[in-house]
Amino acid sequence: MSVTAQDARQFVTPQETPKVVTAPRAGKKYAVELIGTFFLVFTVGASVYSGSPLAPLAIGSSLMVMVYAGGHVSGGHYNPAVTMAALVRGRIGTRDAVGYWITQLAAGALAAGVVRGVVTPAAAVKTVAPAGHALMAAVVVEMLFTFALCYVVLNVATSKDHPNNSFYGLAIGFTVMTGAFAVGGISGGAFNPAVAFGGAVMRVFAWQTLWVYLLAELVAAAVAGFTFRALNPDDK
Amino acid sequence: MSVTAQDARQFVTPQETPKVVTAPRAGKKYAVELIGTFFLVFTVGASVYSGSPLAPLAIGSSLMVMVYAGGHVSGGHYNPAVTMAALVRGRIGTRDAVGYWITQLAAGALAAGVVRGVVTPAAAVKTVAPAGHALMAAVVVEMLFTFALCYVVLNVATSKDHPNNSFYGLAIGFTVMTGAFAVGGISGGAFNPAVAFGGAVMRVFAWQTLWVYLLAELVAAAVAGFTFRALNPDDK
Amino acid sequence: MSVTAQDARQFVTPQETPKVVTAPRAGKKYAVELIGTFFLVFTVGASVYSGSPLAPLAIGSSLMVMVYAGGHVSGGHYNPAVTMAALVRGRIGTRDAVGYWITQLAAGALAAGVVRGVVTPAAAVKTVAPAGHALMAAVVVEMLFTFALCYVVLNVATSKDHPNNSFYGLAIGFTVMTGAFAVGGISGGAFNPAVAFGGAVMRVFAWQTLWVYLLAELVAAAVAGFTFRALNPDDK
Amino acid sequence: MSVTAQDARQFVTPQETPKVVTAPRAGKKYAVELIGTFFLVFTVGASVYSGSPLAPLAIGSSLMVMVYAGGHVSGGHYNPAVTMAALVRGRIGTRDAVGYWITQLAAGALAAGVVRGVVTPAAAVKTVAPAGHALMAAVVVEMLFTFALCYVVLNVATSKDHPNNSFYGLAIGFTVMTGAFAVGGISGGAFNPAVAFGGAVMRVFAWQTLWVYLLAELVAAAVAGFTFRALNPDDK
Repeated sequence: MSVTAQDARQFVTPQETPKVVTAPRAGKKYAVELIGTFFLVFTVGASVYSGSPLAPLAIGSSLMVMVYAGGHVSGGHYNPAVTMAALVRGRIGTRDAVGYWITQLAAGALAAGVVRGVVTPAAAVKTVAPAGHALMAAVVVEMLFTFALCYVVLNVATSKDHPNNSFYGLAIGFTVMTGAFAVGGISGGAFNPAVAFGGAVMRVFAWQTLWVYLLAELVAAAVAGFTFRALNPDDK
Repeated sequence: MSVTAQDARQFVTPQETPKVVTAPRAGKKYAVELIGTFFLVFTVGASVYSGSPLAPLAIGSSLMVMVYAGGHVSGGHYNPAVTMAALVRGRIGTRDAVGYWITQLAAGALAAGVVRGVVTPAAAVKTVAPAGHALMAAVVVEMLFTFALCYVVLNVATSKDHPNNSFYGLAIGFTVMTGAFAVGGISGGAFNPAVAFGGAVMRVFAWQTLWVYLLAELVAAAVAGFTFRALNPDDK
Repeated sequence: MSVTAQDARQFVTPQETPKVVTAPRAGKKYAVELIGTFFLVFTVGASVYSGSPLAPLAIGSSLMVMVYAGGHVSGGHYNPAVTMAALVRGRIGTRDAVGYWITQLAAGALAAGVVRGVVTPAAAVKTVAPAGHALMAAVVVEMLFTFALCYVVLNVATSKDHPNNSFYGLAIGFTVMTGAFAVGGISGGAFNPAVAFGGAVMRVFAWQTLWVYLLAELVAAAVAGFTFRALNPDDK
Repeated sequence: MSVTAQDARQFVTPQETPKVVTAPRAGKKYAVELIGTFFLVFTVGASVYSGSPLAPLAIGSSLMVMVYAGGHVSGGHYNPAVTMAALVRGRIGTRDAVGYWITQLAAGALAAGVVRGVVTPAAAVKTVAPAGHALMAAVVVEMLFTFALCYVVLNVATSKDHPNNSFYGLAIGFTVMTGAFAVGGISGGAFNPAVAFGGAVMRVFAWQTLWVYLLAELVAAAVAGFTFRALNPDDK
């Protein structure tokens, strides 16, 4: 039997699962989102607490490996902004999107709690708390790289033009790595409401600016979703 | 249905789109070049301004992810030198090439403007302004790595011998990363007129030597195009 | 002839070799496990002795390249915990698992001996010897990342949903790299009884806590195996 | 038309070109070896002269991208030791092997000359000139990682069990990166007679120990070739 386009579609474009799923199948998707988001946020916390200048490589790679491990099941979002982009693009239903958001935020909080329990910061934790012009700059770069991340995700993992590729996890994970190296010093480099929320629990991000981050990320994600639709009118 | 060679061709060798395209299709290509070049040059500026010794990893990875996200649409050039090589190799027409050049330079300038507006340099920006023997050295290394980049692009993304591969973005992006690590201290490591131009706007490159960089890069790109044709006479 | 699903299965899911194998075939698998584990543990020792902050990148990459080189023969475990997870998941028989464990531990000890013979530490070797709360933290992070590693291995290299992928080695190797960057400062970042044992020989890990590491890693591996089975009841 | 095993073979196992080739085809192979080896040795020199601790990443990546760009034409050896392993394994004839060796050494010398002409060392060049026990250690680690490199090459790029994979360049390039990080401080991390020879021209390696390196590397490569044959008796 040949590897058929049908098979390839199933494997590369995991969001294409039917909207109405049976309970066990839905449970599996949520479990995968929980595990993936947990390890992403745990890696953010542990590597930032360690003070390593290579934290962005670890963070981007944790996302990459979890996308490869679970993307074929749940879509490998691990990020409420990516779920928003998939919702706008029509690859996930509203009910599942809400379920994903709750799961991702819970996983982020859980990971943050474990980090606080077991990881001793190498130095005093510096809380990212921009204000004034610095907050404006943080909003711009969070929007830019959240847009880039969702744009990459929609193109490498949900486009009908890329069946059966092996690079989707590398592209997705290294977009976050790139952003964290490039603008981590400006905004902290979240690009992900679950990371921002977990980061607030870990005192890496300030609570008072959290809503600004969440809003900026979700808006940028929606823009990425509409951009994909505008550029690919035939790819439903 | 099997994954056919025809399908594979469409996906891996994006330059093979017909020369005469309908307006919406052409608009999509330009939009993808605009987005990709913007994020490449933005990453160059933000990571160089950050002073990180890992800037080359971020820069090469930004190119990689944008090639994976948009290469199947526009060819993923994001670089006037690559467009020159594709023109010599016969994978893009003159009219589209000119359109790509304008788009890429505009995206580079736009990204540079955003960098200047939102990124505060970690230290005083050091402008690369070689003269005398240092300028000669800069020209040599810019030519060598621009040649290498175009040679890699033509071989991994346009050769008929590599259908359906998943490595083209990794190979292309990491060629730039390699060059930036190896010779960034000599020439600044542009290998790309849009980066050189945007870099001048960001005061990373000196304006007075800009034309030397552009000329060196475009000549090296053309040499790579002719080299590909000489080595692959049967691959039109 | 098309690349058939049968071919793809053989190549991507190497654990699927028949349980009853002829002697030469069995010998080949053990030789591959010996070579791969040797180079993994040798790289751990040499790069830790060198004092490089990039040791995690070298270690994760050594695993990646050995998985790509030998995974299709032996499964590319190079790690008794991964063998445990494959046993629980039903991809290796008990007799082979015991043979793998002996081979992996012997290779780890051999590599450690060579490191001690030829590598002069750049600085006094710091032995990881946690106690009290620090030991509890080390156990937690060793369990978390050994679980993550086995979860990734089972999903990318043994799932029936991922035939013919090219990313399995990258995903597996970079899971270890991520863990080593994120929690190397807490537990030493073994996630592998052969590394822990070889590390004890090299004085990187303390002998008195070795059994704690081995137990934590094997338990986490078994949990990953049961998790895979629970989430994939139809994938025998 | 399906992607056939025949097509896949051509692309992934480039060594399988017929032994008797027409003159233009042979010229193409030598040109590709010349270009690839030139950029590998140039990157070694430029990044070592730059003093960057990330030189191993640049060096391994330069090999990776050149393998992806030219491996389907020449086999992408760029290394007399790999050519030796391919000769023992039966994938290249003696006449071509001699031609490759001359080409590779010439390319290494040429690259070294360009480095000396255009790259100013960031600090006084430290020549690796081990003696006594340190020389013994250097021989051991050069043999170990040259063996690993050839073992990886033969398994990922010439095995009949890995048709149509996209990871061969990543595996090959990152084996060298791993070795350079792990044992670069012991032997300089050549694993390649063309690098050792070019390195001597660039005063990175001492001339008086060059023959020891060459001998150790070629012996290790031959051992890797015989190992592959012993483990894969059916893969001619």
